[in-house]
Amino acid sequence: MPIVTIQITREGTSPGATAATAEEKAALIQGVSKLLLDVLHKPMDSTFVVIDEVETENWGRGGLPVDRYREQQRARSSE
Amino acid sequence: MPIVTIQITREGTSPGATAATAEEKAALIQGVSKLLLDVLHKPMDSTFVVIDEVETENWGRGGLPVDRYREQQRARSSE
Amino acid sequence: MPIVTIQITREGTSPGATAATAEEKAALIQGVSKLLLDVLHKPMDSTFVVIDEVETENWGRGGLPVDRYREQQRARSSE
Amino acid sequence: MPIVTIQITREGTSPGATAATAEEKAALIQGVSKLLLDVLHKPMDSTFVVIDEVETENWGRGGLPVDRYREQQRARSSE
Amino acid sequence: MPIVTIQITREGTSPGATAATAEEKAALIQGVSKLLLDVLHKPMDSTFVVIDEVETENWGRGGLPVDRYREQQRARSSE
Amino acid sequence: MPIVTIQITREGTSPGATAATAEEKAALIQGVSKLLLDVLHKPMDSTFVVIDEVETENWGRGGLPVDRYREQQRARSSE
Repeated sequence: MPIVTIQITREGTSPGATAATAEEKAALIQGVSKLLLDVLHKPMDSTFVVIDEVETENWGRGGLPVDRYREQQRARSSE
Repeated sequence: MPIVTIQITREGTSPGATAATAEEKAALIQGVSKLLLDVLHKPMDSTFVVIDEVETENWGRGGLPVDRYREQQRARSSE
Repeated sequence: MPIVTIQITREGTSPGATAATAEEKAALIQGVSKLLLDVLHKPMDSTFVVIDEVETENWGRGGLPVDRYREQQRARSSE
Repeated sequence: MPIVTIQITREGTSPGATAATAEEKAALIQGVSKLLLDVLHKPMDSTFVVIDEVETENWGRGGLPVDRYREQQRARSSE
Repeated sequence: MPIVTIQITREGTSPGATAATAEEKAALIQGVSKLLLDVLHKPMDSTFVVIDEVETENWGRGGLPVDRYREQQRARSSE
Repeated sequence: MPIVTIQITREGTSPGATAATAEEKAALIQGVSKLLLDVLHKPMDSTFVVIDEVETENWGRGGLPVDRYREQQRARSSE
């Protein structure tokens, strides 16, 4: 009876989207439940999945909020 | 000094409600703090409780988002 | 289908015990599942409970590891 | 830069094993990172995975520690 | 590659603010990443920080929602 | 009344150490509690800190357990 928590930034991956779509979330839920069935033989019915969407200003990396971290990375790679 | 995290789907239990009410949340906080006092003698003052409300499209079970999982269960039980 | 996480320090409450006993853990699981049934009408079968025992040196309060925090509190109250 | 937390009971799935093996854990890490790449186009390098193994006496379902819950389910299904 | 999760109530600390500001969040991210570099020599680039803002009615202490807990504390200290 | 959770791999940073030392943990607890006081004016007494040490085989990055990920990074940087 596994519990899987998926934390992602709240932002879209397709043009115009501002967050993961319901279809993308369903694909994550389906995929990770299937993975636990395949690897550890856990029945899909007993796997819980929680997707936690985090505002980009609440996510940090490299000591910076993620938007500024990405700008910094782009600036470096174009040097 | 326990920390209790209660994750629930954001939906109502009483007619017309779209989420747990403030009264229901207060009852959860009171009840779980009392439980830790009774079972482990933890002073209520040092127990923290966090209620995390999760959108139904972000909660999965049986490889499906929870709304579709419930439809599936209802369909099965009415077969 | 709630998920409840109970974080406690790993230490005993009864003489000689160095951690919560299996009976105490069972009482926490039973009590919190019953609470979610009573307050939010969640079927007990769909509530998951996870108890997370944390070493005292890994738990901090008041800027101090919990053992030193308690010593400080005792020293203050006996002043 | 997603974070995935996989909580499972500490118990084996293959004969003689008392916990998930290093190979099974590696397969979970590989599979879930690949899933986030496929569904949300997240580079595998920026996905963190944490596997949290929980003792069976610390995991509850149906108001019971998981070992007792399973006994109850088996007893019911053999009625 | 540490992960730091900071849970705070959603409320402002400066006059007129109803939540932590983007600047305050950036200072938390910067400060905690620097702390892990100083104490455990973790490169800042590999530290992830997630700030989780919790509504005050979803946060409990002393068996009460936090707003009522604070009222109670104020009432006691003015006795 | 913030809660800070610090997840790190269980491994030493000083020669011969196989995990963060009690002194290093105390420094993390002190530092992060001070940070919340400085940035958000949270009294240190009401900040809880939990340090969660994760076995390296339970931590993944880049689709690999962390030990293998580091080997891969070293091999790449020496090419």
